[in-house]
Amino acid sequence: MYDTGDCRCCPGQNQLRASVVKTCFESEEKKMERIKPRTLSGFMELLPAAQTQFERMVSALRETYGLYGFTPLDTPVIESAEILLAKGGGETEKQIYRFTKGDSDLALRFDLTVPLAKYVALHYGELTFPFRRYQIGKVYRGERAQRGRFREFYQCDIDVIGDGKLDITNEAEIPAIIYQAFTSLGLERFKIRVNNRKILTGFYDMQGLAQQAGEIMRTVDKLDKIGEKKVQALLMEQGVSAQAAQEILDFIAITGDNQTVLAALEGYRGRSEIFDQGLEELGLVVKYLGAFGVPEDHFAVDLTIARGLDYYTGTVYETVMLDHPEIGSICSGGRYDNLAEYYTDKKLPGVGISIGLTRLFYVLGEQGYLNEGLVTAPADVLILPMTEDQTAAIAFATQLRQAGVRAQIYGEQKKFKAKMSYADKLGIPYVVFLGEEEIAQGVVKVKEMTTGEQEVFSPTQAVQTIAEVIAQRAQGKPIREKG
Amino acid sequence: MYDTGDCRCCPGQNQLRASVVKTCFESEEKKMERIKPRTLSGFMELLPAAQTQFERMVSALRETYGLYGFTPLDTPVIESAEILLAKGGGETEKQIYRFTKGDSDLALRFDLTVPLAKYVALHYGELTFPFRRYQIGKVYRGERAQRGRFREFYQCDIDVIGDGKLDITNEAEIPAIIYQAFTSLGLERFKIRVNNRKILTGFYDMQGLAQQAGEIMRTVDKLDKIGEKKVQALLMEQGVSAQAAQEILDFIAITGDNQTVLAALEGYRGRSEIFDQGLEELGLVVKYLGAFGVPEDHFAVDLTIARGLDYYTGTVYETVMLDHPEIGSICSGGRYDNLAEYYTDKKLPGVGISIGLTRLFYVLGEQGYLNEGLVTAPADVLILPMTEDQTAAIAFATQLRQAGVRAQIYGEQKKFKAKMSYADKLGIPYVVFLGEEEIAQGVVKVKEMTTGEQEVFSPTQAVQTIAEVIAQRAQGKPIREKG
Repeated sequence: MYDTGDCRCCPGQNQLRASVVKTCFESEEKKMERIKPRTLSGFMELLPAAQTQFERMVSALRETYGLYGFTPLDTPVIESAEILLAKGGGETEKQIYRFTKGDSDLALRFDLTVPLAKYVALHYGELTFPFRRYQIGKVYRGERAQRGRFREFYQCDIDVIGDGKLDITNEAEIPAIIYQAFTSLGLERFKIRVNNRKILTGFYDMQGLAQQAGEIMRTVDKLDKIGEKKVQALLMEQGVSAQAAQEILDFIAITGDNQTVLAALEGYRGRSEIFDQGLEELGLVVKYLGAFGVPEDHFAVDLTIARGLDYYTGTVYETVMLDHPEIGSICSGGRYDNLAEYYTDKKLPGVGISIGLTRLFYVLGEQGYLNEGLVTAPADVLILPMTEDQTAAIAFATQLRQAGVRAQIYGEQKKFKAKMSYADKLGIPYVVFLGEEEIAQGVVKVKEMTTGEQEVFSPTQAVQTIAEVIAQRAQGKPIREKG
Repeated sequence: MYDTGDCRCCPGQNQLRASVVKTCFESEEKKMERIKPRTLSGFMELLPAAQTQFERMVSALRETYGLYGFTPLDTPVIESAEILLAKGGGETEKQIYRFTKGDSDLALRFDLTVPLAKYVALHYGELTFPFRRYQIGKVYRGERAQRGRFREFYQCDIDVIGDGKLDITNEAEIPAIIYQAFTSLGLERFKIRVNNRKILTGFYDMQGLAQQAGEIMRTVDKLDKIGEKKVQALLMEQGVSAQAAQEILDFIAITGDNQTVLAALEGYRGRSEIFDQGLEELGLVVKYLGAFGVPEDHFAVDLTIARGLDYYTGTVYETVMLDHPEIGSICSGGRYDNLAEYYTDKKLPGVGISIGLTRLFYVLGEQGYLNEGLVTAPADVLILPMTEDQTAAIAFATQLRQAGVRAQIYGEQKKFKAKMSYADKLGIPYVVFLGEEEIAQGVVKVKEMTTGEQEVFSPTQAVQTIAEVIAQRAQGKPIREKG
């Protein structure tokens, strides 16, 4: 194009002098049409230090889930739209990212449960039941973007799927996993709230309100917001008798420690088979808490918890941060009877919970709960070679890495101050100097960046000293609540 | 709907007798329209044991990248199509998953480099340079599905990005990272091949063929496939003189150990500034290998390697499995001068490499290279409670988990044989029996599943014994090459 003397940035200027052409070339290069870089709204993209904190939380959850015998699973982000929308339903269909590629009608997964259902139905013959899997992955919902709401976010799920049957002990174990998951993250002030859907169903059966149970529960759910009087009025508008409305309010008002609540529920025994079964189950869940290592004060039976009305059939779980009830539940789930009814006639009951990690991370950050004491630098040691030949610096870096210490060699030709500033900005805990003197003496000079103290070590001593301190600093947990 | 006596599965049958209606209800439930579960073609979905092996490889890479001072990064899977397609170009545009949501023109990332370029341009002011990041994530390409090719696959990338400048030591470090990455996976028989684009550019300058260098390199690239004679003929068809064609073939034929190749290249020194610079750089890369811990036999200078002609400007890397050259390079990359020219006028040179893990995993599986000696079970211990009250079993599981041993309680009401078969099928290494006798004596009975040996321990002894064996078995690497 430039051979003709024509130029894209100066159209019509065919007869340019050499000097003009040169200028023109340069400005062409500078003016190259650029696209303003941006990340889509509703998509979390973290800076390095925050990303490191996020990864630490993912690792802690992965490890916890592993300790309880769950196997990791990874399913495609894209599935056939027909598969994902098998259940259908309003909000899901509106929010889903759906598109065609060639002849295929595709969609991005909006949760990890539907892909699990597909997976279990598809690989039924190759799996061993109960099938216990965890999955930590991104899901997509085209919600209206708003503060703290994300269109791409991580779900961290576990599920236990039985083949035909699934014992109540699986439900009893879930609070232990929730407790250990949040404890491993460093959260202390939280409470796991548990109910059993059979107790609710049985109770409404007793009142002759089985048909309306769903509607009633939705009304009762407003108790915190609108108060007892208004709930009562609404119930009566729905055709519930004054007496039944009072019974419902009395029932919901049953609170206290676990034994107190269970004792109160005993008063209803014998009037509904399903209620009695629910009470048995709830009793077992409470009974095993201690053996599972869940402290009493982190657990409460809460009769107001219902969750997805059409889906859950047994124990249901919510988890709240004691100092931030406004956030809502940070880990929820429950027992269901038919995981994969849209894909198979096999009856696959299960129990599962989910942590929405992206939102939780956002909230913790907002609250200043992320542990700033942990190293978020990309390296534990920055090595500054002070000679042209960097062999000694490289060899020391290799030695550190072999000992599991994260090391970076700073090889750029910069002034000393700029090099120190690099370590400082990134929060790298140690800087190692290797000049002619150190190399001649076979030592390294180590500067601890927070104290500013410098010490000379043999390379082996240095590796050992640094490795110990770094291992100790890594003991901290990702979350540190404010006192 | 059923109130009228009409029925979805038997249209027009309005006047049904009660018994028929009942049957009809039942068959409605049984015949519920089901969708055949399937996973899209070209999308890898692994069974649990294989997934566990895959996760182990991801962990090994994550740890290696971390040891070299790279920070983890995670960017959205969806980006604005305008951002992803800034560079444009044939194959990319054809293969990309692109769609609209509301008013937004969106696309799924097809690699991790373009999102990195966007990230660095967008967050330039908040990053510290050189910026060293790793990213392990899924990318999407709507290629024609074929064996061993995937439409969704993991890339495992590292890049070092400089601000304006980037020292050659960063390029010298890359072979060490490649070596350590594959070594940590357990691969032994591989070779890292390195070249420097400046040497190629300089050499073609010398021949007066700078303008045609790209075309010539594409022809030379066919050497292995079509032989020397045909390459010579093709070159001459492209207007290269017989003498120059011979010079090119002689140059490409330079082989031998690193020092031999470098010595031969010395013969060209002084004829092209850029050649000489490339030779200096290559010399440095070779010089530091030892200090970086890369054995000589895992590294070769290879003048036939060019890689992406428009993009790379310095050192370029490929990695081949010695026993499987047909697979092609399993880790490639190089030095480039302008990471983010489409988004910013900042000059951001960098060097990076990528491992296509999904394909590598597939190939390793095909070759039988995955280490079957590693535990792929979801748990290390399966606890069988033999009493109705499971408190003792649960308490022992809690004790195991606190010691970092992955434990599962088998609470299902099944026959003893079915319980043992569960452990067997999943390959769980230990089964623990807790019957009335054991509980009364405060002991546990431990069966080692591979040997079939049973031993009685105190709970604390059992935890310790099992933890030691499990830790030892975890020492193995994900890949075990066949002898």
